[in-house]
Amino acid sequence: MHSWITTFGDHCTPQGRQAVRTDCKRTNPRDTIEPVPRVSQDQLDARRHEILSAARSCFARFGYEGATVRRLEDATGLSRGAIFHHFRDKESLFLAVAEDDAAAMVETVARNGLVQVMRDLLDRAGSSDGDTAGWLGSQLEVSRRLRTDPAFARRWAERSAAIATATRERLQRQREAGVLRDDVPVEVLTQFLELAYDGMVLHLATGRPAGELGKVLDLVEAAVRRS
Amino acid sequence: MHSWITTFGDHCTPQGRQAVRTDCKRTNPRDTIEPVPRVSQDQLDARRHEILSAARSCFARFGYEGATVRRLEDATGLSRGAIFHHFRDKESLFLAVAEDDAAAMVETVARNGLVQVMRDLLDRAGSSDGDTAGWLGSQLEVSRRLRTDPAFARRWAERSAAIATATRERLQRQREAGVLRDDVPVEVLTQFLELAYDGMVLHLATGRPAGELGKVLDLVEAAVRRS
Repeated sequence: MHSWITTFGDHCTPQGRQAVRTDCKRTNPRDTIEPVPRVSQDQLDARRHEILSAARSCFARFGYEGATVRRLEDATGLSRGAIFHHFRDKESLFLAVAEDDAAAMVETVARNGLVQVMRDLLDRAGSSDGDTAGWLGSQLEVSRRLRTDPAFARRWAERSAAIATATRERLQRQREAGVLRDDVPVEVLTQFLELAYDGMVLHLATGRPAGELGKVLDLVEAAVRRS
Repeated sequence: MHSWITTFGDHCTPQGRQAVRTDCKRTNPRDTIEPVPRVSQDQLDARRHEILSAARSCFARFGYEGATVRRLEDATGLSRGAIFHHFRDKESLFLAVAEDDAAAMVETVARNGLVQVMRDLLDRAGSSDGDTAGWLGSQLEVSRRLRTDPAFARRWAERSAAIATATRERLQRQREAGVLRDDVPVEVLTQFLELAYDGMVLHLATGRPAGELGKVLDLVEAAVRRS
Protein backbone atom coordinates (compact mmCIF):
# COMPACT_ATOMS: atom_id res chain seq x y z
CA MET A 1 0.00 0.00 0.00
CA HIS A 2 2.81 2.39 0.89
CA SER A 3 4.44 2.21 -2.51
CA TRP A 4 1.12 2.67 -4.28
CA ILE A 5 0.45 5.87 -2.38
CA THR A 6 3.86 7.29 -3.07
CA THR A 7 3.61 6.34 -6.75
CA PHE A 8 0.39 8.31 -6.82
CA GLY A 9 2.20 11.23 -5.20
CA ASP A 10 4.77 11.00 -7.94
CA HIS A 11 2.13 11.60 -10.62
CA CYS A 12 0.41 14.48 -8.83
CA THR A 13 3.45 16.70 -8.42
CA PRO A 14 2.99 20.45 -8.00
CA GLN A 15 3.22 22.61 -11.11
CA GLY A 16 6.73 23.45 -12.16
CA ARG A 17 8.02 20.06 -11.09
CA GLN A 18 8.34 17.16 -13.47
CA ALA A 19 4.90 15.56 -13.74
CA VAL A 20 4.37 12.20 -15.39
CA ARG A 21 0.63 12.78 -15.66
CA THR A 22 -1.02 16.16 -15.33
CA ASP A 23 -4.68 15.11 -15.49
CA CYS A 24 -4.91 13.43 -12.09
CA LYS A 25 -6.82 14.93 -9.18
CA ARG A 26 -5.83 15.06 -5.51
CA THR A 27 -8.29 12.43 -4.28
CA ASN A 28 -7.48 9.89 -1.60
CA PRO A 29 -6.05 6.96 -3.55
CA ARG A 30 -7.73 4.56 -1.15
CA ASP A 31 -11.13 5.77 -2.42
CA THR A 32 -10.43 5.14 -6.11
CA ILE A 33 -10.25 1.89 -8.00
CA GLU A 34 -8.82 3.28 -11.25
CA PRO A 35 -5.82 1.25 -12.40
CA VAL A 36 -2.44 2.86 -11.80
CA PRO A 37 -0.25 2.91 -14.92
CA ARG A 38 2.42 0.24 -14.56
CA VAL A 39 5.98 1.47 -14.55
CA SER A 40 8.64 -0.83 -15.98
CA GLN A 41 11.74 -1.76 -13.98
CA ASP A 42 13.82 0.14 -16.55
CA GLN A 43 11.79 3.28 -15.96
CA LEU A 44 12.13 2.86 -12.18
CA ASP A 45 15.89 2.37 -12.53
CA ALA A 46 16.19 5.43 -14.76
CA ARG A 47 14.18 7.52 -12.31
CA ARG A 48 16.28 6.24 -9.41
CA HIS A 49 19.44 7.17 -11.30
CA GLU A 50 18.11 10.68 -12.06
CA ILE A 51 17.26 11.24 -8.39
CA LEU A 52 20.71 10.08 -7.24
CA SER A 53 22.48 12.36 -9.70
CA ALA A 54 20.43 15.43 -8.76
CA ALA A 55 20.67 14.64 -5.02
CA ARG A 56 24.45 14.34 -5.33
CA SER A 57 24.65 17.89 -6.72
CA CYS A 58 22.32 19.11 -4.01
CA PHE A 59 24.41 17.54 -1.21
CA ALA A 60 27.55 18.90 -2.89
CA ARG A 61 26.14 22.42 -3.05
CA PHE A 62 24.40 22.71 0.31
CA GLY A 63 26.05 20.03 2.45
CA TYR A 64 24.21 17.22 4.23
CA GLU A 65 22.33 19.44 6.68
CA GLY A 66 21.72 22.20 4.12
CA ALA A 67 20.19 19.80 1.58
CA THR A 68 16.65 20.17 2.89
CA VAL A 69 13.75 18.14 1.49
CA ARG A 70 12.56 21.30 -0.28
CA ARG A 71 15.96 21.73 -1.95
CA LEU A 72 16.04 18.05 -2.88
CA GLU A 73 12.62 18.53 -4.52
CA ASP A 74 13.95 21.51 -6.48
CA ALA A 75 17.12 19.68 -7.50
CA THR A 76 15.36 16.52 -8.66
CA GLY A 77 12.27 18.24 -10.07
CA LEU A 78 10.19 15.73 -8.13
CA SER A 79 7.88 15.86 -5.14
CA ARG A 80 9.01 14.49 -1.79
CA GLY A 81 6.50 11.67 -2.31
CA ALA A 82 8.24 10.66 -5.53
CA ILE A 83 11.72 10.90 -3.99
CA PHE A 84 10.82 8.93 -0.89
CA HIS A 85 9.07 6.30 -2.97
CA HIS A 86 12.58 5.31 -4.04
CA PHE A 87 14.51 6.14 -0.85
CA ARG A 88 13.12 5.77 2.65
CA ASP A 89 14.45 9.07 3.97
CA LYS A 90 17.19 11.66 3.44
CA GLU A 91 19.75 9.48 5.19
CA SER A 92 18.97 6.56 2.88
CA LEU A 93 19.18 8.88 -0.13
CA PHE A 94 22.58 10.16 1.02
CA LEU A 95 23.86 6.63 1.63
CA ALA A 96 22.54 5.54 -1.78
CA VAL A 97 24.56 8.33 -3.45
CA ALA A 98 27.61 7.21 -1.46
CA GLU A 99 26.99 3.55 -2.42
CA ASP A 100 26.70 4.54 -6.07
CA ASP A 101 30.03 6.34 -5.75
CA ALA A 102 31.58 3.34 -3.99
CA ALA A 103 30.37 0.98 -6.74
CA ALA A 104 32.09 3.15 -9.37
CA MET A 105 35.22 3.29 -7.21
CA VAL A 106 35.26 -0.50 -6.77
CA GLU A 107 35.24 -0.88 -10.58
CA THR A 108 38.10 1.58 -11.04
CA VAL A 109 40.08 -0.01 -8.19
CA ALA A 110 39.67 -3.50 -9.70
CA ARG A 111 40.83 -2.25 -13.11
CA ASN A 112 43.43 0.42 -12.29
CA GLY A 113 43.92 0.56 -8.50
CA LEU A 114 43.09 3.00 -5.71
CA VAL A 115 45.84 5.42 -6.79
CA GLN A 116 43.95 5.86 -10.09
CA VAL A 117 40.79 6.71 -8.11
CA MET A 118 42.82 9.42 -6.36
CA ARG A 119 44.19 10.72 -9.67
CA ASP A 120 40.66 10.91 -11.11
CA LEU A 121 39.48 12.76 -7.99
CA LEU A 122 42.34 15.24 -8.31
CA ASP A 123 41.51 15.83 -12.00
CA ARG A 124 37.83 16.37 -11.29
CA ALA A 125 38.55 18.73 -8.37
CA GLY A 126 40.85 20.73 -10.65
CA SER A 127 38.23 21.07 -13.39
CA SER A 128 35.58 23.79 -13.41
CA ASP A 129 32.90 21.52 -11.89
CA GLY A 130 32.64 22.51 -8.23
CA ASP A 131 30.70 19.40 -7.25
CA THR A 132 33.66 17.23 -6.30
CA ALA A 133 34.87 19.22 -3.30
CA GLY A 134 31.28 19.81 -2.20
CA TRP A 135 30.34 16.15 -2.31
CA LEU A 136 33.50 15.15 -0.43
CA GLY A 137 32.70 17.90 2.08
CA SER A 138 29.21 16.56 2.71
CA GLN A 139 30.83 13.21 3.52
CA LEU A 140 32.99 14.90 6.17
CA GLU A 141 29.87 16.51 7.56
CA VAL A 142 28.47 13.11 8.54
CA SER A 143 31.77 11.99 10.12
CA ARG A 144 30.45 12.70 13.62
CA ARG A 145 27.56 10.29 13.03
CA LEU A 146 30.02 7.60 11.99
CA ARG A 147 31.37 7.79 15.54
CA THR A 148 28.15 8.28 17.43
CA ASP A 149 25.39 6.55 15.41
CA PRO A 150 26.03 2.78 15.15
CA ALA A 151 23.28 2.11 12.58
CA PHE A 152 24.56 4.82 10.26
CA ALA A 153 28.16 3.69 10.80
CA ARG A 154 27.22 0.09 9.89
CA ARG A 155 25.69 1.13 6.57
CA TRP A 156 28.69 3.34 5.77
CA ALA A 157 31.12 0.57 6.73
CA GLU A 158 29.62 -1.79 4.11
CA ARG A 159 30.47 0.80 1.47
CA SER A 160 34.05 1.23 2.74
CA ALA A 161 34.51 -2.53 3.09
CA ALA A 162 33.72 -3.05 -0.62
CA ILE A 163 36.45 -0.56 -1.59
CA ALA A 164 38.95 -2.08 0.86
CA THR A 165 38.25 -5.59 -0.49
CA ALA A 166 38.73 -4.47 -4.10
CA THR A 167 41.99 -2.76 -3.13
CA ARG A 168 43.26 -5.83 -1.24
CA GLU A 169 42.36 -8.18 -4.12
CA ARG A 170 44.13 -6.02 -6.67
CA LEU A 171 47.25 -5.77 -4.51
CA GLN A 172 47.17 -9.56 -4.05
CA ARG A 173 47.05 -10.02 -7.85
CA GLN A 174 49.93 -7.56 -8.23
CA ARG A 175 51.94 -9.43 -5.64
CA GLU A 176 51.39 -12.69 -7.52
CA ALA A 177 52.48 -10.91 -10.71
CA GLY A 178 55.68 -9.84 -8.93
CA VAL A 179 55.21 -6.07 -9.34
CA LEU A 180 54.42 -5.41 -5.66
CA ARG A 181 57.03 -5.10 -2.91
CA ASP A 182 57.05 -8.35 -0.94
CA ASP A 183 58.55 -7.21 2.38
CA VAL A 184 55.29 -5.68 3.69
CA PRO A 185 51.99 -7.59 4.18
CA VAL A 186 49.25 -6.84 1.63
CA GLU A 187 46.98 -5.73 4.50
CA VAL A 188 49.44 -2.99 5.52
CA LEU A 189 49.79 -1.83 1.90
CA THR A 190 45.99 -1.75 1.60
CA GLN A 191 45.68 0.44 4.68
CA PHE A 192 48.54 2.64 3.46
CA LEU A 193 46.62 3.36 0.23
CA GLU A 194 43.42 3.96 2.19
CA LEU A 195 45.26 6.46 4.42
CA ALA A 196 46.39 8.33 1.31
CA TYR A 197 42.85 8.25 -0.09
CA ASP A 198 41.42 9.63 3.16
CA GLY A 199 44.07 12.34 3.13
CA MET A 200 43.07 13.27 -0.42
CA VAL A 201 39.41 13.47 0.57
CA LEU A 202 40.17 15.82 3.48
CA HIS A 203 42.56 17.94 1.39
CA LEU A 204 40.10 18.46 -1.47
CA ALA A 205 37.00 18.80 0.74
CA THR A 206 38.59 21.73 2.56
CA GLY A 207 39.19 23.49 -0.76
CA ARG A 208 42.98 23.52 -0.55
CA PRO A 209 44.87 23.90 -3.84
CA ALA A 210 46.18 20.72 -5.50
CA GLY A 211 49.80 21.82 -5.01
CA GLU A 212 52.17 18.92 -5.74
CA LEU A 213 49.55 16.23 -5.11
CA GLY A 214 50.14 14.68 -8.55
CA LYS A 215 53.78 14.03 -7.65
CA VAL A 216 52.75 12.95 -4.15
CA LEU A 217 50.61 10.24 -5.77
CA ASP A 218 53.63 9.08 -7.80
CA LEU A 219 55.41 8.67 -4.46
CA VAL A 220 52.46 6.77 -2.95
CA GLU A 221 52.41 4.45 -5.95
CA ALA A 222 56.16 3.88 -5.83
CA ALA A 223 55.97 3.06 -2.10
CA VAL A 224 53.89 -0.09 -2.73
CA ARG A 225 55.83 -1.25 -5.81
CA ARG A 226 58.87 -3.49 -5.95
CA SER A 227 61.79 -1.08 -6.23
CA MET B 1 35.17 49.87 28.29
CA HIS B 2 34.29 46.57 26.71
CA SER B 3 36.93 44.63 28.64
CA TRP B 4 35.93 46.28 31.88
CA ILE B 5 32.32 45.17 31.47
CA THR B 6 33.29 41.61 30.70
CA THR B 7 35.73 41.53 33.63
CA PHE B 8 32.84 42.62 35.80
CA GLY B 9 30.72 39.82 34.32
CA ASP B 10 33.50 37.45 35.27
CA HIS B 11 33.18 38.33 38.93
CA CYS B 12 29.40 38.13 39.08
CA THR B 13 28.97 34.61 37.77
CA PRO B 14 25.84 32.64 38.70
CA GLN B 15 26.04 30.32 41.69
CA GLY B 16 27.67 26.99 41.02
CA ARG B 17 30.11 28.53 38.59
CA GLN B 18 33.60 29.57 39.58
CA ALA B 19 33.28 33.04 41.11
CA VAL B 20 36.28 35.23 41.84
CA ARG B 21 34.24 37.53 44.08
CA THR B 22 30.86 36.63 45.52
CA ASP B 23 29.97 39.89 47.21
CA CYS B 24 29.28 41.95 44.10
CA LYS B 25 25.81 43.03 43.03
CA ARG B 26 24.27 43.05 39.55
CA THR B 27 24.43 46.83 39.01
CA ASN B 28 25.21 48.45 35.72
CA PRO B 29 29.02 48.77 35.74
CA ARG B 30 28.73 52.09 33.90
CA ASP B 31 27.02 53.59 36.98
CA THR B 32 29.73 52.58 39.44
CA ILE B 33 33.17 54.05 39.96
CA GLU B 34 34.51 51.40 42.36
CA PRO B 35 37.99 50.26 41.32
CA VAL B 36 38.18 46.86 39.61
CA PRO B 37 40.74 44.51 41.16
CA ARG B 38 43.81 44.30 38.93
CA VAL B 39 44.56 40.90 37.47
CA SER B 40 48.17 40.04 36.67
CA GLN B 41 49.24 38.85 33.21
CA ASP B 42 50.10 35.46 34.74
CA GLN B 43 46.59 35.12 36.12
CA LEU B 44 45.11 36.12 32.75
CA ASP B 45 47.31 33.57 30.97
CA ALA B 46 46.37 30.85 33.45
CA ARG B 47 42.67 31.65 33.04
CA ARG B 48 43.06 31.66 29.25
CA HIS B 49 44.74 28.24 29.40
CA GLU B 50 41.98 26.83 31.63
CA ILE B 51 39.32 28.05 29.22
CA LEU B 52 41.09 26.55 26.21
CA SER B 53 41.46 23.18 27.89
CA ALA B 54 37.82 23.00 28.98
CA ALA B 55 36.59 24.29 25.60
CA ARG B 56 38.63 21.63 23.82
CA SER B 57 36.83 18.88 25.79
CA CYS B 58 33.50 20.55 25.11
CA PHE B 59 34.13 20.74 21.33
CA ALA B 60 35.39 17.14 21.43
CA ARG B 61 32.28 15.92 23.22
CA PHE B 62 29.55 17.89 21.46
CA GLY B 63 31.13 18.93 18.15
CA TYR B 64 31.46 22.50 16.92
CA GLU B 65 27.73 23.14 16.49
CA GLY B 66 26.77 21.18 19.60
CA ALA B 67 29.17 23.15 21.83
CA THR B 68 26.66 25.87 22.68
CA VAL B 69 27.60 28.88 24.80
CA ARG B 70 25.67 27.30 27.69
CA ARG B 71 27.72 24.11 27.40
CA LEU B 72 30.93 26.12 27.16
CA GLU B 73 29.91 27.89 30.39
CA ASP B 74 29.32 24.54 32.09
CA ALA B 75 32.60 23.10 30.80
CA THR B 76 34.73 26.07 31.82
CA GLY B 77 32.82 26.87 35.02
CA LEU B 78 32.75 30.48 33.84
CA SER B 79 30.08 32.87 32.65
CA ARG B 80 29.85 33.77 28.98
CA GLY B 81 31.07 37.25 29.95
CA ALA B 82 34.23 35.78 31.40
CA ILE B 83 34.81 33.48 28.41
CA PHE B 84 34.26 36.19 25.84
CA HIS B 85 36.48 38.56 27.75
CA HIS B 86 39.32 36.34 26.55
CA PHE B 87 37.94 35.24 23.16
CA ARG B 88 35.79 37.41 20.92
CA ASP B 89 33.27 34.71 20.03
CA LYS B 90 32.85 30.94 19.73
CA GLU B 91 34.67 30.89 16.40
CA SER B 92 37.67 32.68 17.92
CA LEU B 93 37.62 30.29 20.88
CA PHE B 94 37.59 27.30 18.52
CA LEU B 95 40.42 28.73 16.43
CA ALA B 96 42.41 29.47 19.61
CA VAL B 97 42.12 25.81 20.67
CA ALA B 98 43.25 24.80 17.16
CA GLU B 99 46.16 27.28 17.31
CA ASP B 100 47.19 25.90 20.69
CA ASP B 101 47.17 22.42 19.16
CA ALA B 102 49.14 23.62 16.16
CA ALA B 103 51.77 25.27 18.39
CA ALA B 104 52.28 21.95 20.22
CA MET B 105 52.44 20.13 16.86
CA VAL B 106 55.03 22.58 15.51
CA GLU B 107 57.27 21.83 18.51
CA THR B 108 56.95 18.06 18.05
CA VAL B 109 57.52 18.36 14.30
CA ALA B 110 60.68 20.44 14.81
CA ARG B 111 62.03 17.91 17.32
CA ASN B 112 60.79 14.54 16.02
CA GLY B 113 58.95 15.09 12.72
CA LEU B 114 55.36 14.91 11.51
CA VAL B 115 55.34 11.10 11.62
CA GLN B 116 55.88 11.34 15.39
CA VAL B 117 52.86 13.66 15.63
CA MET B 118 50.85 10.93 13.88
CA ARG B 119 52.19 8.23 16.21
CA ASP B 120 51.25 10.34 19.26
CA LEU B 121 47.76 10.88 17.80
CA LEU B 122 47.36 7.14 17.25
CA ASP B 123 48.46 6.41 20.83
CA ARG B 124 46.08 8.96 22.31
CA ALA B 125 43.16 7.73 20.17
CA GLY B 126 43.86 4.19 21.36
CA SER B 127 43.90 5.18 25.04
CA SER B 128 40.76 5.43 27.15
CA ASP B 129 40.46 9.19 26.71
CA GLY B 130 37.74 9.75 24.10
CA ASP B 131 38.64 13.37 23.48
CA THR B 132 41.07 12.80 20.62
CA ALA B 133 38.58 11.46 18.06
CA GLY B 134 36.00 14.03 19.17
CA TRP B 135 38.32 16.96 18.78
CA LEU B 136 39.48 15.77 15.35
CA GLY B 137 35.82 15.30 14.44
CA SER B 138 34.95 18.86 15.40
CA GLN B 139 37.71 20.00 13.03
CA LEU B 140 36.06 18.05 10.19
CA GLU B 141 32.77 19.70 11.09
CA VAL B 142 34.14 23.11 10.14
CA SER B 143 35.63 21.81 6.87
CA ARG B 144 32.72 23.22 4.88
CA ARG B 145 33.50 26.70 6.19
CA LEU B 146 37.10 26.31 5.06
CA ARG B 147 35.73 26.13 1.52
CA THR B 148 32.96 28.70 1.78
CA ASP B 149 34.05 31.26 4.40
CA PRO B 150 37.24 33.09 3.27
CA ALA B 151 37.84 34.86 6.62
CA PHE B 152 37.62 31.60 8.56
CA ALA B 153 39.76 29.81 5.96
CA ARG B 154 42.44 32.50 6.23
CA ARG B 155 42.74 32.11 9.99
CA TRP B 156 42.86 28.32 9.69
CA ALA B 157 45.46 28.52 6.92
CA GLU B 158 47.89 30.39 9.21
CA ARG B 159 47.70 27.47 11.61
CA SER B 160 48.32 24.91 8.83
CA ALA B 161 51.11 27.00 7.32
CA ALA B 162 53.06 26.93 10.60
CA ILE B 163 52.92 23.11 10.65
CA ALA B 164 53.87 22.86 6.97
CA THR B 165 56.83 25.21 7.50
CA ALA B 166 58.08 23.21 10.49
CA THR B 167 57.76 20.00 8.46
CA ARG B 168 59.60 21.47 5.47
CA GLU B 169 62.41 22.84 7.64
CA ARG B 170 62.92 19.52 9.40
CA LEU B 171 63.01 17.64 6.09
CA GLN B 172 65.50 20.17 4.76
CA ARG B 173 67.74 19.54 7.78
CA GLN B 174 67.40 15.78 7.26
CA ARG B 175 68.34 16.16 3.61
CA GLU B 176 71.45 18.09 4.58
CA ALA B 177 72.28 15.34 7.09
CA GLY B 178 71.96 12.80 4.27
CA VAL B 179 69.20 10.69 5.84
CA LEU B 180 66.47 11.82 3.43
CA ARG B 181 65.96 10.46 -0.09
CA ASP B 182 67.36 12.96 -2.57
CA ASP B 183 65.46 12.02 -5.74
CA VAL B 184 62.24 13.82 -4.72
CA PRO B 185 61.94 17.57 -3.92
CA VAL B 186 61.50 18.45 -0.23
CA GLU B 187 58.21 20.19 -1.11
CA VAL B 188 56.74 16.94 -2.50
CA LEU B 189 57.91 15.01 0.58
CA THR B 190 56.35 17.68 2.82
CA GLN B 191 53.01 17.35 1.05
CA PHE B 192 53.28 13.55 1.14
CA LEU B 193 53.58 13.66 4.95
CA GLU B 194 50.71 16.15 5.16
CA LEU B 195 48.54 13.83 3.05
CA ALA B 196 49.25 11.01 5.49
CA TYR B 197 48.48 13.29 8.44
CA ASP B 198 45.16 14.34 6.90
CA GLY B 199 44.34 10.68 6.26
CA MET B 200 45.07 9.90 9.91
CA VAL B 201 42.78 12.73 11.04
CA LEU B 202 39.89 11.48 8.90
CA HIS B 203 40.47 7.86 9.94
CA LEU B 204 40.48 8.59 13.67
CA ALA B 205 37.72 11.23 13.56
CA THR B 206 35.32 8.71 12.04
CA GLY B 207 36.00 6.29 14.90
CA ARG B 208 37.53 3.54 12.77
CA PRO B 209 39.80 1.04 14.58
CA ALA B 210 43.56 1.64 14.39
CA GLY B 211 44.10 -1.59 12.45
CA GLU B 212 47.63 -1.71 11.04
CA LEU B 213 48.16 2.06 11.17
CA GLY B 214 51.32 1.70 13.27
CA LYS B 215 52.93 -0.35 10.49
CA VAL B 216 51.47 2.00 7.89
CA LEU B 217 53.35 4.85 9.60
CA ASP B 218 56.58 2.81 9.38
CA LEU B 219 55.94 2.64 5.63
CA VAL B 220 55.26 6.40 5.44
CA GLU B 221 58.50 7.09 7.29
CA ALA B 222 60.50 4.72 5.09
CA ALA B 223 59.09 6.35 1.94
CA VAL B 224 60.83 9.67 2.71
CA ARG B 225 64.12 8.15 3.91
CA ARG B 226 67.17 7.28 1.85
CA SER B 227 66.82 3.54 1.22
